[in-house]
Amino acid sequence: MKKKAFPLVKVNTLLQHGPVVMISTAAGGRNNVMTLSWLTMVDFDPPLVGCVISDENRTFGTLKNTCECVINIPTLAIARKALACGSTSGADTDKFAAFGLTPQKASLVKAPLIKECYASLECRLEDSGMSDKYNFFVLKVVKAWVSGEKKPKTLHHLGGNSFMLPGRTVKVKKWK
Amino acid sequence: MKKKAFPLVKVNTLLQHGPVVMISTAAGGRNNVMTLSWLTMVDFDPPLVGCVISDENRTFGTLKNTCECVINIPTLAIARKALACGSTSGADTDKFAAFGLTPQKASLVKAPLIKECYASLECRLEDSGMSDKYNFFVLKVVKAWVSGEKKPKTLHHLGGNSFMLPGRTVKVKKWK
Repeated sequence: MKKKAFPLVKVNTLLQHGPVVMISTAAGGRNNVMTLSWLTMVDFDPPLVGCVISDENRTFGTLKNTCECVINIPTLAIARKALACGSTSGADTDKFAAFGLTPQKASLVKAPLIKECYASLECRLEDSGMSDKYNFFVLKVVKAWVSGEKKPKTLHHLGGNSFMLPGRTVKVKKWK
Repeated sequence: MKKKAFPLVKVNTLLQHGPVVMISTAAGGRNNVMTLSWLTMVDFDPPLVGCVISDENRTFGTLKNTCECVINIPTLAIARKALACGSTSGADTDKFAAFGLTPQKASLVKAPLIKECYASLECRLEDSGMSDKYNFFVLKVVKAWVSGEKKPKTLHHLGGNSFMLPGRTVKVKKWK
């Protein structure tokens, strides 16, 4: 999917409605990717994102060592790939090859963008101080890319293999 | 809304799809409530939730002092009230009274449940170690309440006064 640069100060609008994301990393000439839904915005500008990555995942160590990753936002079109990336280990599988995902060169980090995702956020590790206790990492978004897709069908994890898709958008009136 | 006790180990299914929440607190005989969408699950069991509460909000100090709060999940039915609670300060407004919200006695904490919300999670402050640097609090859910409402119309914040409502649910097939 072709993407254009997106203003960093608007990154919050891509994440605060709760989409599943795919975190890509690179180390030793190998790309890896995992899927998660446990993340939150932490600040607007510069955009900080907090995410929980279990120390049972290969990504935990790679992120600590390389201090870089990309947060990619998948849509329904690749839901099976996203689910598969969340239920296999990068220790014994090249998930990009196994699940037909295309790595694209990022501009500021070595971790790849995922071509099939509608948005990709290049990140540097800002703070790993809570990673040993809570598997919690604070990431700084340094470059954002978004496709022109209207109303992307982001995935919102309900549990197991169940996901909620976006419904209608409402504009809520002010109280007075 | 009448709610029943809900298993703590399933609390993640209430939050990981990204709904807006309303955090209620109590101090000095006064209730307060604020609305936010910057939160994430941190652990399953016991259920830990991480949330970002700006130090410009009255709730920041109350949570630090009382070490208790309730995470309430509103639906479209009270969207205007949720928005209003997110854009006024508890320093000069009794938001429960001003916006027609009904406090209900919680079982384990002094902060009130919000009757009009479809789910309420009684929480104790687990860790405020990242609150000074990132406004980030780790909360432990100690009691959960959920109404029997089917497919609750949770609010997912896009930005400003725009919210996405849940659409259809999909069950994603395994890769093989």
